[in-house]
Amino acid sequence: MTNVGVNGYGTIGKRVADAVAAQPDMTLVGVAKTRPNFEAETAARKGYPLYAAVADRADRFAEEGLELAGAVDDLVAEADVVVDCTPSGIGAENAALYEERDTPAIYQGGEDADVADVSFNARANYTEAVGADSARVVSCNTTGLSRILAPLDEAYGVEKARVTLVRRGGDPGQTGRGPIDDILPDPVTIPSHHGPDVNTIFPDLDIDTLGMKVPATLMHTHSVNVTLESSPNADEVRDLFADETRLFQIPAGADIDGSGKLKEFAHDAGRPRGDLWENCIWEESITVEGHDLYLFQAIHQESDVVPENVDAIRALTGAADAAESRTTTEDAMGVGIDYGR
Amino acid sequence: MTNVGVNGYGTIGKRVADAVAAQPDMTLVGVAKTRPNFEAETAARKGYPLYAAVADRADRFAEEGLELAGAVDDLVAEADVVVDCTPSGIGAENAALYEERDTPAIYQGGEDADVADVSFNARANYTEAVGADSARVVSCNTTGLSRILAPLDEAYGVEKARVTLVRRGGDPGQTGRGPIDDILPDPVTIPSHHGPDVNTIFPDLDIDTLGMKVPATLMHTHSVNVTLESSPNADEVRDLFADETRLFQIPAGADIDGSGKLKEFAHDAGRPRGDLWENCIWEESITVEGHDLYLFQAIHQESDVVPENVDAIRALTGAADAAESRTTTEDAMGVGIDYGR
Repeated sequence: MTNVGVNGYGTIGKRVADAVAAQPDMTLVGVAKTRPNFEAETAARKGYPLYAAVADRADRFAEEGLELAGAVDDLVAEADVVVDCTPSGIGAENAALYEERDTPAIYQGGEDADVADVSFNARANYTEAVGADSARVVSCNTTGLSRILAPLDEAYGVEKARVTLVRRGGDPGQTGRGPIDDILPDPVTIPSHHGPDVNTIFPDLDIDTLGMKVPATLMHTHSVNVTLESSPNADEVRDLFADETRLFQIPAGADIDGSGKLKEFAHDAGRPRGDLWENCIWEESITVEGHDLYLFQAIHQESDVVPENVDAIRALTGAADAAESRTTTEDAMGVGIDYGR
Repeated sequence: MTNVGVNGYGTIGKRVADAVAAQPDMTLVGVAKTRPNFEAETAARKGYPLYAAVADRADRFAEEGLELAGAVDDLVAEADVVVDCTPSGIGAENAALYEERDTPAIYQGGEDADVADVSFNARANYTEAVGADSARVVSCNTTGLSRILAPLDEAYGVEKARVTLVRRGGDPGQTGRGPIDDILPDPVTIPSHHGPDVNTIFPDLDIDTLGMKVPATLMHTHSVNVTLESSPNADEVRDLFADETRLFQIPAGADIDGSGKLKEFAHDAGRPRGDLWENCIWEESITVEGHDLYLFQAIHQESDVVPENVDAIRALTGAADAAESRTTTEDAMGVGIDYGR
């Protein structure tokens, strides 16, 4: 069993904690949280040992009636691997803490690539993280792109990728963010950071990305163009994607027109928090014109990196190979949608 | 002087009527309206002769205190050219009315291409409409694309264009439309109608387009990729565009991050209704990677086709050549933004 600590219990951390707790080969030794808010309350209800991420705030937890198992240093000492799920930039500040105790650490995609030995995607480069001291799970969007680029490159060769990422302005809980009633080039310069981030996983890939931000909260949506080195037809691409458990192809007959219905489908299916860990690709959108493949995919920013974090734990410890880890993760979490079956 | 009638006095019709009334070589002989709503009231206040688009509804105008000059047939009889600004599909139904009276007619981009002798963009194919009986001014998005593709093709040659159109869900006044908080592939199949519509102007151009719909009302935004036959640098493209009066390059220092500030700028500048007749291209976004040009542009769906409608009138009557017409239209309307000058 691998003892796992989760530092940071917000949008990603709480999901990673649940996913770790569900794995047959892992024990969640605790979660660290800065503030005793509703999420801390839920962690306590679930019986997750709670640690104060900032030592001198322990009193505040007591005031809210929340019992602490210790401070974050204690959690790091308990853990074989720490998954850092703190906000962008804080992970880098925490690196010294993990290194001091020689505890392998996993960081999130909001950190710069140099925070860790390797940037990680379970489908594309699992083996590069085996035995490393640290790995950075790339962001939700980069994860979503890596999952389609890996099989496309293996099957057909990728000459060039061009992607427009239409990004949700904020998560449903981020009530202070915008825009309202606007479409913002974001960034206005090209490329957006996503292309270079994909290159941390596929160093030789030719990719240009453009980012925009719109008044939506549920999911990102990608308009993807991949110029291939050969010319499969659309059905061949659909068959290729059907073998990928982390790609969900939305059937035409499902009447799912956007992220609202995707989330409703996930809730109806009993998914925890309505999470969609899979890329959601509109089957009808998969089109090949000559060497140019096009498709639309929606990416659930709050959850698609969660199975990747679980796999990263096994890669660092060398506990399983890529295929075995992915299957174990998916079986334990319930990842994969076999629509109509 | 050319006598011009405008049939349909909604979003486009009222703007075309104002633009025609401002031209030195045209007389607005009247506007036809189906219902005596606030727009009819405004037409009356401006002194535009008002015609009933549906003959048996004349009483309703009287009830609202609005005096009619006649029915739409009378307007067609008065006019040398009719600009049909009725909703999509109604223009085709009206075609018989114009043909019966041998009155040259201009249709909007919501109609099928076969409604008219020629599809029209003032920058790209003015001469094709000279002496024709009818022309169809292509839609706001196709107009926006034609205005950049024409100079790019002339200067560098276009190998292929790939465009993602992030469309506003509805105009500010269309209170019944959505989405709210969603990003919808629209249509989910590829290509969207925009690519084939661009081919009505540039028959040989290789173009693939993808459409999406988001919770915004102010303007459309295009993520544009054009693979060129040569490799200019970004400044050369900026210089090329600087010669085009209907392209506004938003300077980096302007602090205009989206359509909200673009509209605010237009209002501050005293533009009627805050209209932006020009493509609004973020100067910073113009990027060339090898042969691939990228840029973001915002398109004001309510107004960018208005100068094109005015030019189409002169093309049908043969009253001026393309350059002369465009200059006359722009001088009379105030089209063109020389930022910082």
